[in-house]
Amino acid sequence: MKHCLPFDTLHEECGVFGIFGGQEIPPAQAAYYGLYALQHRGQESCGIAVSDRGVLSVHRAMGLVGEVFDDAVLSSLPGQIAIGHVRYSTAGGSLVQNCQPLLMRYAKGRLAIAHNGNLTNAETVREELAKGGAMFQTTIDSEVIAHVIAQERLTAGSVEQAVVRMMGRIHGAYSLLVMSPQKLVAARDPFGFRPLVIGRLGSSYVIASETCALDAVNAEFIRDVEPGEVVVVDAEGLRSIRAHCAEQPRRMCVFEYIYFARPDSTLDGVRVHAARLRAGALLAREHPADADIVIGVPDSGLDAAIGFARESGIPFETGFVRNNYVGRTFIKPEQDEREASINIKLNVLRQSVAGKRIVMVDDSIVRGSTSANIIRALKKAGAKQVHVRISSPTLHWPCYFGTDIPTREELTSNHHTVDELCKAIGADSLGFLSCESLYPLVGTQERTFCDACFTGEYPIPLDEINGNFLSKQPFEKPNAH
Amino acid sequence: MKHCLPFDTLHEECGVFGIFGGQEIPPAQAAYYGLYALQHRGQESCGIAVSDRGVLSVHRAMGLVGEVFDDAVLSSLPGQIAIGHVRYSTAGGSLVQNCQPLLMRYAKGRLAIAHNGNLTNAETVREELAKGGAMFQTTIDSEVIAHVIAQERLTAGSVEQAVVRMMGRIHGAYSLLVMSPQKLVAARDPFGFRPLVIGRLGSSYVIASETCALDAVNAEFIRDVEPGEVVVVDAEGLRSIRAHCAEQPRRMCVFEYIYFARPDSTLDGVRVHAARLRAGALLAREHPADADIVIGVPDSGLDAAIGFARESGIPFETGFVRNNYVGRTFIKPEQDEREASINIKLNVLRQSVAGKRIVMVDDSIVRGSTSANIIRALKKAGAKQVHVRISSPTLHWPCYFGTDIPTREELTSNHHTVDELCKAIGADSLGFLSCESLYPLVGTQERTFCDACFTGEYPIPLDEINGNFLSKQPFEKPNAH
Amino acid sequence: MKHCLPFDTLHEECGVFGIFGGQEIPPAQAAYYGLYALQHRGQESCGIAVSDRGVLSVHRAMGLVGEVFDDAVLSSLPGQIAIGHVRYSTAGGSLVQNCQPLLMRYAKGRLAIAHNGNLTNAETVREELAKGGAMFQTTIDSEVIAHVIAQERLTAGSVEQAVVRMMGRIHGAYSLLVMSPQKLVAARDPFGFRPLVIGRLGSSYVIASETCALDAVNAEFIRDVEPGEVVVVDAEGLRSIRAHCAEQPRRMCVFEYIYFARPDSTLDGVRVHAARLRAGALLAREHPADADIVIGVPDSGLDAAIGFARESGIPFETGFVRNNYVGRTFIKPEQDEREASINIKLNVLRQSVAGKRIVMVDDSIVRGSTSANIIRALKKAGAKQVHVRISSPTLHWPCYFGTDIPTREELTSNHHTVDELCKAIGADSLGFLSCESLYPLVGTQERTFCDACFTGEYPIPLDEINGNFLSKQPFEKPNAH
Amino acid sequence: MKHCLPFDTLHEECGVFGIFGGQEIPPAQAAYYGLYALQHRGQESCGIAVSDRGVLSVHRAMGLVGEVFDDAVLSSLPGQIAIGHVRYSTAGGSLVQNCQPLLMRYAKGRLAIAHNGNLTNAETVREELAKGGAMFQTTIDSEVIAHVIAQERLTAGSVEQAVVRMMGRIHGAYSLLVMSPQKLVAARDPFGFRPLVIGRLGSSYVIASETCALDAVNAEFIRDVEPGEVVVVDAEGLRSIRAHCAEQPRRMCVFEYIYFARPDSTLDGVRVHAARLRAGALLAREHPADADIVIGVPDSGLDAAIGFARESGIPFETGFVRNNYVGRTFIKPEQDEREASINIKLNVLRQSVAGKRIVMVDDSIVRGSTSANIIRALKKAGAKQVHVRISSPTLHWPCYFGTDIPTREELTSNHHTVDELCKAIGADSLGFLSCESLYPLVGTQERTFCDACFTGEYPIPLDEINGNFLSKQPFEKPNAH
Repeated sequence: MKHCLPFDTLHEECGVFGIFGGQEIPPAQAAYYGLYALQHRGQESCGIAVSDRGVLSVHRAMGLVGEVFDDAVLSSLPGQIAIGHVRYSTAGGSLVQNCQPLLMRYAKGRLAIAHNGNLTNAETVREELAKGGAMFQTTIDSEVIAHVIAQERLTAGSVEQAVVRMMGRIHGAYSLLVMSPQKLVAARDPFGFRPLVIGRLGSSYVIASETCALDAVNAEFIRDVEPGEVVVVDAEGLRSIRAHCAEQPRRMCVFEYIYFARPDSTLDGVRVHAARLRAGALLAREHPADADIVIGVPDSGLDAAIGFARESGIPFETGFVRNNYVGRTFIKPEQDEREASINIKLNVLRQSVAGKRIVMVDDSIVRGSTSANIIRALKKAGAKQVHVRISSPTLHWPCYFGTDIPTREELTSNHHTVDELCKAIGADSLGFLSCESLYPLVGTQERTFCDACFTGEYPIPLDEINGNFLSKQPFEKPNAH
Repeated sequence: MKHCLPFDTLHEECGVFGIFGGQEIPPAQAAYYGLYALQHRGQESCGIAVSDRGVLSVHRAMGLVGEVFDDAVLSSLPGQIAIGHVRYSTAGGSLVQNCQPLLMRYAKGRLAIAHNGNLTNAETVREELAKGGAMFQTTIDSEVIAHVIAQERLTAGSVEQAVVRMMGRIHGAYSLLVMSPQKLVAARDPFGFRPLVIGRLGSSYVIASETCALDAVNAEFIRDVEPGEVVVVDAEGLRSIRAHCAEQPRRMCVFEYIYFARPDSTLDGVRVHAARLRAGALLAREHPADADIVIGVPDSGLDAAIGFARESGIPFETGFVRNNYVGRTFIKPEQDEREASINIKLNVLRQSVAGKRIVMVDDSIVRGSTSANIIRALKKAGAKQVHVRISSPTLHWPCYFGTDIPTREELTSNHHTVDELCKAIGADSLGFLSCESLYPLVGTQERTFCDACFTGEYPIPLDEINGNFLSKQPFEKPNAH
Repeated sequence: MKHCLPFDTLHEECGVFGIFGGQEIPPAQAAYYGLYALQHRGQESCGIAVSDRGVLSVHRAMGLVGEVFDDAVLSSLPGQIAIGHVRYSTAGGSLVQNCQPLLMRYAKGRLAIAHNGNLTNAETVREELAKGGAMFQTTIDSEVIAHVIAQERLTAGSVEQAVVRMMGRIHGAYSLLVMSPQKLVAARDPFGFRPLVIGRLGSSYVIASETCALDAVNAEFIRDVEPGEVVVVDAEGLRSIRAHCAEQPRRMCVFEYIYFARPDSTLDGVRVHAARLRAGALLAREHPADADIVIGVPDSGLDAAIGFARESGIPFETGFVRNNYVGRTFIKPEQDEREASINIKLNVLRQSVAGKRIVMVDDSIVRGSTSANIIRALKKAGAKQVHVRISSPTLHWPCYFGTDIPTREELTSNHHTVDELCKAIGADSLGFLSCESLYPLVGTQERTFCDACFTGEYPIPLDEINGNFLSKQPFEKPNAH
Repeated sequence: MKHCLPFDTLHEECGVFGIFGGQEIPPAQAAYYGLYALQHRGQESCGIAVSDRGVLSVHRAMGLVGEVFDDAVLSSLPGQIAIGHVRYSTAGGSLVQNCQPLLMRYAKGRLAIAHNGNLTNAETVREELAKGGAMFQTTIDSEVIAHVIAQERLTAGSVEQAVVRMMGRIHGAYSLLVMSPQKLVAARDPFGFRPLVIGRLGSSYVIASETCALDAVNAEFIRDVEPGEVVVVDAEGLRSIRAHCAEQPRRMCVFEYIYFARPDSTLDGVRVHAARLRAGALLAREHPADADIVIGVPDSGLDAAIGFARESGIPFETGFVRNNYVGRTFIKPEQDEREASINIKLNVLRQSVAGKRIVMVDDSIVRGSTSANIIRALKKAGAKQVHVRISSPTLHWPCYFGTDIPTREELTSNHHTVDELCKAIGADSLGFLSCESLYPLVGTQERTFCDACFTGEYPIPLDEINGNFLSKQPFEKPNAH
């Protein structure tokens, strides 16, 4: 689970939730609770679309689930099917037009789409579509997907067949929900970069990014959507199309386990909290430290810290108090901004750390500045030593599959050795998890995860990735008339 | 000018404003003032799109101009070209997705569109486009227009040529603004159903629905956009394409003169206030009355009342006090709703009317209920007689060109003779302007206006009008999957 | 009725509304409609207090009635008695703490107070109270009144007797509503500076600033509260205490007739609209003009313009179109602000005025700048001559009784002769109503009105007026500790 | 630190923050950060008052610090002194009028007051004041305090002397900040029921409820305000008046250590986090359990759980995932409300607890319903046994000193033995900390804390406590007129 605030960290881009069948709970209300549980995957905008006896409508806006939806809005969204979406995006793309789910009308009727992931050939496909006369009103991949589905639907026999054909045309990472007037269709890319799980609540089916969203509506977990699988839920129940289920091993984003997913989720059979405990234990074996206490950086470093403590036998302590009330409108102090800001959001628990040799566990180092500030605060509070242990390997490469990793220039590990970085952030020692340890972390012996951001070994050949897709921008380029 | 409140009246559907050149005033700010002056043409939503050195962006939302735009929003819209839009729509279509201007990306770049009017073959064209794979995210005609322009632009040499070709494919009423990165293009349908005027402010060109919007930014009126004309403004100045300028006489909606337009506007050479004075005078000749005072129903009946008073020699009086503070959130009383509601929004000026024989001038009778309430209030205040004079003929036919006239069922004149209606509303006499008087009202001898709602004589053959377009609905129809 | 926007004009300071008895309409809802009708008397803040079986509660906030109250708020104010208040105030006093009604607890229970007017010995009384240990949380006179009532109530036999005693201690202008758990008490100062009327709606009694508020709830006008009278309404009905009803003639603020009150109100027997017609007619006799048309400055100059037109035989015309949508958040243009701003709020109806010799009627000239702007706009629109006629005498003196008249320095009539002023504002001639004409305007032969702002003849000796009360300021003065 | 949501728990009533001297940081901004750090002490309303060269002003409203204050508001509060307040209150008292700081005007000038605690003779003093003619506009003790200070100030030589005299008249719990135009005065009741600490930031002095607020502005802790002490800060520095510093031992509310205060605070020499670790360790000794893991209920049970784990040697685990995004507008599910609600706000970490024998540590049991729901959720997730350990004794008595403890009727421990309660909530065993263990918890050998809610041994004789003060209500009582 990630920080709720714009620390110097990585960002997931979306979460999706869908439900078919309204006997147990009104679908829009289920989506509301499900999105609440997925809010950590995106805090910028959210939306819910419903199908009410075949009539589709949507409500979506900038803001948190609790801000965008109230009783009146939920009541205005009756239905038997619902899909919902939470979204994070970089500043440039923060446009209300880009909120999801998208609701489209085409030759064969209406459909709504909610999508988590990043296509690697979106620009190519968009250009093809545009040459055929297509128009785009947003800058998001989901609109490209919708266009392809619509185009294929003209000749395909059903919306799910159109989805299957679409999967042959688009590449990259996608965990996708499509709602037609009478069906809920889910699709996961053949690598399974992003999670997608199926649950059941009485006679209703639920499909969501993480199992914690199933728990939120008291739905029982059934299984993951398999990489490459298309799942169709309609009045006749749930069925599966495995046309794109591939031979190659799955490649779930390993950062889902390290950092993105909620610890109470289980994804592709891996229990996230347990994986983080293992990460901490592996760290303790790879980079032991002679220290008095182990502390974690809230919230995402806590689990690994517990794991480190157990493995090392060094007592786990609470090192920081996090202020739960700091929201998006927080006014930053002007002078000495960074350090002061840490005092408000995260205060060092002086009584725990004063005079102590400390192991501080965090999940990643992106630019290094936040780590430096935290270490400075710990030392100011009297810590004798601060041994930093990071529960992931060093970051070197961009992600093309939906994680907002900064450019290579900005990644501090591309400029510094670990020793240099250790000095730069003021730590007494610094250790990163090795890439080899990712296997036991995930609990696997073959590479069933994507670790390209650490290794540069991308599951998709780089030359098939649209060069400019990371620089996609909303209506900003000057154009000839 | 229409009532600002949902009385039982007719509704215009939109107003547009565009400006090219930012030397005199920032274009977004000009649009802000221009839309304020056009607010009577639409109070539901509004928006402004700008081109800043070729980069297009837009802000649009539900609400009045004064609610949607503030200093911060205007500042975030720098540019050299701007187009703006105000919109009224029936309840069913009140969706944020339908706000204009639309901003689209297609093979040749970006464009923004703002549109006033109703196409008569929108469904036919939409279907054709859909068959070719097009997707629609809104239910408004403007999106259809955008698709056709985009399609034509693939082979046309310029955006203005694409607009010209588009005009060969779409039919009906449109006063249209198109903004490409470097150009402002305006087009008016060959009948000229809706107004569109050109002004100049220093080196900037302004194109707007009414001259009152030119006044708002201190621009000088140059001329009307001619029916069928395409006007292009770019760095080289203003030029005109008259490929669709037709032989047939123009057919400006006569209700623009009677009721929709602001009295301080001059449209196609007709001064609106003067036309209303003439309407009152003509009424006085056609339907004289023996009375003590002439009063008008605010605001749209006042001018014709003054005209009636002058012609008849009966003194003009103030008959009502209108409450300027009643806004959209007004809570209606439960019991006796209609009558009470009139007391709040419009209070009879008892001291003027008590003991008097009154001529009450209003612009139209749609359902008759409002008239009945007002007359009851006048009599309760002591009026001895109420002679109702309506400055337009009886309404019998629907409008397919952008006026929100109720169905034939709802139009009271289709169920009652004038005498019956007179009794039904409790008037002592009732007179409507004759259709013949519309000629001197407009100041013309041939039919240069559309009076189809009175006469049923549509300028476009009815069988060319898409039967279902009045029932267009936002994502409401069940669809096969 | 005054402009809804901060033109360069005078301001009334408050309106009050009270109702006892909830059989016909819930009291809070009645107050809501009543305050809507009194909104012209104050647009800054408003509030409603209710007594529900003896339990008092209040809702009050900055904003218009339509902004502060909605269904939920009104529903949270059940009761059998209600008092309400609308307030205008100068910028310095725009504090939420100063919103009324005030709700106080004291030795004998609770009471709520709503007040229109200005005390002339507020500072003296406040100081006396403070010396006795009183504390103040607002800067408004109403709090002083509440303190005096509370103090007197300790020994008086009833709340109404406390009000009577309070009237012996405070001086100045007040139209006051006091709500105790079981009673509604109204009091009007012995001069009757501000209006206060009584109405009946079934078994309920209504007391309000103007009769238009009675109309708003369909209440029947009974009579004015007399100057010096205390009116008590409780379960036993309405009764009157005339201990302070004085010998001297009443001194109603003449500006209520000229400008403040709504034209559909009748105050102290004077019908406001009729009085304004008379003002126009008197002006026409005193200052005739050779002109083609008579126009009024909306909204307050329109009635007098009609009166002028009738008396002179010169046709009445519409000279301006007012934009009903310009609200409080209107962003003013930076360059050429004043003139441009007139184009937005008030556009000259060029077609009426071009080439015409015009009589323009307005109600007052305060600083002169607005008049100059309007005249400039008229001439720019082609007016040949502009003869300005003002339906009140020249302003020379401050008001101590509740009208927000600028300082003597700012009153242009204290610096210029009428001829100089005529030139300064660019008029072709300028005429003010004479002070003598105020008598026929009001329809009286003795001075039953206060005209001190014109004549300097104050009903209360100036040395009894607290010197500093006009400079009362909210918590702004440095104080020794 | 308490839950951020209305669980079935105890509530603190307020937090205060004051600063004198604006060289280092604008005082209003310091108050903003300080109140953020104290937000756990009150989430209902907040406010900041400043003195700007002797001129006092205030901004206060319902809502969290981050909602009530933004850049514009803070900028409108320049000054050299500031006091701030956060407030929690029961529903009945949720009135905007009751927001603090209060700003009052009296004979000697202005003063502002912010107060944490509950007076035990407020009604008696209020009655005395009312008999003398005082009026009250709020229902809060702070207004009573202000009245007494004002009364005393009439004869005392300074505001601090008035505060000293006031302390002779009021009884109960108070940690108080008073701001006069030139001074910041702090006072703490002679028992020291509520904390109050002094810090220094360069040349500025800071006084706040907890040390975590000093950390928030980087101020250095100097010392606690002593029970009975009055501290004055003005241009000449800080000085102390110890007229009320008593012989008797301090009686700090022990719940501050167990639950209210932030774990990173140190109050009266007791480090809060360490005290909670001790509480857990003491629990482990008093009520050992045979279990596989120890979990804490977030957030307040976590520290004691760590303490229990260390002492018992049973591993500490994460048992729940708390949703940080659940805000005040959360829509509760209708059916099965309680249980579902726990799934959203607090999800059991199934993978940690399934198949385990669990020790679950929480800080208190008030009504028992929340505990029952949590235990049910744990068992549903597969927990084999749940041994509940509570880090405080059983609650039996009301608090008259500022903690919102329910009535004796509602306290489950007054109806059930521990065994009965254990069964009722579905636990496998249940243990509360003994009252004797509070001494080592606080780290003292004599009773330097108030434990009356457990023992009924009140520091102030019960007959001196105003019987009705717990039922104080805002303007709700019917009153004779």
